[in-house]
Amino acid sequence: MISMISNLQKRDLQHVWHPCSQMKDYEDLPPIVIKSGKGIYLYDENGKQYIDAVSSWWVNLFGHCNERISTALVNQAFQLEHAIFANFTHEPAIFLAEKLVKITPNGLKKVFFADNGSSAIEVALKMSFQYHMQKDKRKKKRFLALTDAYHGETLGALSVGGVGLYNDVFRPLLLDTERAQGPDCFRCPFNDRPDHCSAPCLSFIEEKLELYHEEITAIIIEPLIQAAAGMKMYPPSYLKKLKELCLQYDVHLIADEIAVGFGRTGTMFACEQAGITPDFMCLSKGLTGGYLPLSVVLTTDDVYQAFYDDYHTMKAFLHSHSYTGNPLACRVALEVLQIFEEDDYIEQIRGKSTYMDKLATGVFNHQAYVGEYRQTGMVGAIELVKDKETKEPFPSEERIGYKIYQIALENGLLLRPLGNVLYFMPPYVITKEEIKTMIEKTNKAIQEFFCTR
Amino acid sequence: MISMISNLQKRDLQHVWHPCSQMKDYEDLPPIVIKSGKGIYLYDENGKQYIDAVSSWWVNLFGHCNERISTALVNQAFQLEHAIFANFTHEPAIFLAEKLVKITPNGLKKVFFADNGSSAIEVALKMSFQYHMQKDKRKKKRFLALTDAYHGETLGALSVGGVGLYNDVFRPLLLDTERAQGPDCFRCPFNDRPDHCSAPCLSFIEEKLELYHEEITAIIIEPLIQAAAGMKMYPPSYLKKLKELCLQYDVHLIADEIAVGFGRTGTMFACEQAGITPDFMCLSKGLTGGYLPLSVVLTTDDVYQAFYDDYHTMKAFLHSHSYTGNPLACRVALEVLQIFEEDDYIEQIRGKSTYMDKLATGVFNHQAYVGEYRQTGMVGAIELVKDKETKEPFPSEERIGYKIYQIALENGLLLRPLGNVLYFMPPYVITKEEIKTMIEKTNKAIQEFFCTR
Ligand SMILES: Cc1ncc(COP(=O)(O)O)c(C=O)c1O
Ligand SMILES: Cc1ncc(COP(=O)(O)O)c(C=O)c1O
Repeated sequence: MISMISNLQKRDLQHVWHPCSQMKDYEDLPPIVIKSGKGIYLYDENGKQYIDAVSSWWVNLFGHCNERISTALVNQAFQLEHAIFANFTHEPAIFLAEKLVKITPNGLKKVFFADNGSSAIEVALKMSFQYHMQKDKRKKKRFLALTDAYHGETLGALSVGGVGLYNDVFRPLLLDTERAQGPDCFRCPFNDRPDHCSAPCLSFIEEKLELYHEEITAIIIEPLIQAAAGMKMYPPSYLKKLKELCLQYDVHLIADEIAVGFGRTGTMFACEQAGITPDFMCLSKGLTGGYLPLSVVLTTDDVYQAFYDDYHTMKAFLHSHSYTGNPLACRVALEVLQIFEEDDYIEQIRGKSTYMDKLATGVFNHQAYVGEYRQTGMVGAIELVKDKETKEPFPSEERIGYKIYQIALENGLLLRPLGNVLYFMPPYVITKEEIKTMIEKTNKAIQEFFCTR
Repeated sequence: MISMISNLQKRDLQHVWHPCSQMKDYEDLPPIVIKSGKGIYLYDENGKQYIDAVSSWWVNLFGHCNERISTALVNQAFQLEHAIFANFTHEPAIFLAEKLVKITPNGLKKVFFADNGSSAIEVALKMSFQYHMQKDKRKKKRFLALTDAYHGETLGALSVGGVGLYNDVFRPLLLDTERAQGPDCFRCPFNDRPDHCSAPCLSFIEEKLELYHEEITAIIIEPLIQAAAGMKMYPPSYLKKLKELCLQYDVHLIADEIAVGFGRTGTMFACEQAGITPDFMCLSKGLTGGYLPLSVVLTTDDVYQAFYDDYHTMKAFLHSHSYTGNPLACRVALEVLQIFEEDDYIEQIRGKSTYMDKLATGVFNHQAYVGEYRQTGMVGAIELVKDKETKEPFPSEERIGYKIYQIALENGLLLRPLGNVLYFMPPYVITKEEIKTMIEKTNKAIQEFFCTR
């Protein structure tokens, strides 16, 4: 499709091994060299513009090279770029922790810092495990997780993930995680509809808890949207009941809001919609508005106290990364939260997502190969199916999503799919006009693909 | 010791859970609130100055708030702060990968990006494992690592670590790593001396390889210095022979240069001193000069090719982090490498470390409670012992190092110890005058401690 390869592309391919890629694919679709970003747009070396419809893997909130955020970063860079975070602290971390405690569900009081999403998951898993050891519940050595879950790719995080694509080959290196069937509203085994279902599929978890609760230290979930599995969405009622089950069976609840936190689902955090407080909440991605790797795990006083004791009891939680609490990243995160507050972004997101939902539903839902268009907050997903009636999926070898992605790229739209699911997860600064363009370009790519096939 | 607690300290303790800390310790030694940094100094909220003798956990190279690095960061912040790195690329990543390939040992050709040291280790472990699966060596499912090793604290990285303090409690969650006794030049079981030993302790590894080479995918080591274990140093001859063993037994060699890379040992990379090329080299920490979390794994064409195939063969290495290849961090790293080049820093490090070695040896080596002062490049370590003759260590419950650290803090020196080992690992911009001050302050703290005990 792309015939010429630029000098920079050649240099890239000589030495760079890209993530989540079969590098041989790059022979046909060489890496696009981005020179600059502004708002929802990325610009390549030829000046070509792309709408970043996936917020660069779900991290960007307020646009590329946001003036306010870049300025905050600059100020910090000449004040304090980094300092060891054991026994030392600094204002950006203190203020950020305060703000996070304030805006997250009641009861989350303590903030532990890490560098990326996967590391935050590892922290939560380790904390939950050590907590139970120190409470003398020494049988609790395993985790419960859902099918189609994605929590990152370090070995601990990968162990709780349930997407075969990422973990099948590594099976011999992974923990023996107990797995329960997760919610699947598109192909609901109970033939319910998400808007008035009573979450009967929670029974899959309950069965596991009944059998194994004595061995299970925590259940980990992605609240409201199983993102990497293809933006699989489910209603808050599921979470509400899940929290009750956790209390009943004395099992921690780890809410992985790495993808859905910071307004993505229409509320600041997805757990809000169910009115629940998990024992651990993991945040990353949007935390820095798409600027820098940073993550946090929020937890309760109950958990904190289980580790708080005289040194010689050896109850401390020993986990650290060299850059824990990095001031540059914390300062950027603070600015992100300030923007949320001052510009009342949650309200803006609601307006924009209502518009997006209406428009996209109209455009996509009636199409032959669209199983459904679904949306939660600022996440919209088009599920492509071979057969609309039976919901039979396209075989993954056909790489339908990938092919449509390539067409969309030609048309200046970055729409990296998840298998047969195309999705929108644009920066919140997107205008209604731009939402319209994004939807039109997507539609055009789908039409072009199915018409020429 | 510190009687008053400031408002910021109070606010910190309310919500921040610090890494690698028993939080109860903070009742007596509250977190020091750093307001700014410049060169080798950190300044707290009262304007008190601290020499950052540990480069903030070994990350800083060219001083805090280095003018050149901060300026590079600023420029990038208004150009392109971040973009998805699958199928997309940008100049900072391309140029950084090129430079890294150029300055690392011959044969390392491909660069895979991640966010922190632990994640880089996870990448190397996963790559080595998957490589052997794809080469149909399906028995190779375990790793070989050394006693006293430290490779990070996500569960995969922790599994290859050998420091009980960090991993004992998590044992049920860790991989079944094969462990060989590592080098211990201070308490050499062969009574050899590092400057003319023939590395007989390599037999511990050889025994393991003889028995288990068919099951072992890789051996992972910290070249020249086992840092977290207490700056345990060993000679290059060990590495040279180890590389031969790896070839002989068909086992990958993973060199974890996260702590020792970028000039710390007096050469750009520690492996250089042994003239070896590992199969994987992990870098982080100094990579960004202490500014931002970023890591890379360099590997060979042989490894790369084992994953390079048609998509449907499913041989791709699927590992990603949201912020993989972050342009801000890559741009900063590029500037760090530029400074190395333009200012001929390796030469400077040699001069400074010779000076430091001479001075510190003179001051510390004759002291009653100093087992030895040892140094490799810009890493100097004082091993405190209860009995100089027998080398009997102080019991860890006495927290000797921690107590001396507290005294040093009072005197404006940040000297966070590792058990009974005090060490210097200052930023390279330190002057000879400042080296002298650092050594004097350390000596004063040691004297004060042992005289008042
Ligand atoms: C829900 C969820 N958890 C964890 C992660 C892992 O975060 P990271 O990529 O920063 O390691 C992701 C990243 O995509 C995610 O979507
Ligand atoms: C040798 C070595 N490997 C790995 C790591 C882990 O790196 P990080 O702390 O960035 O996860 C460290 C950190 O201290 C280290 O010293």
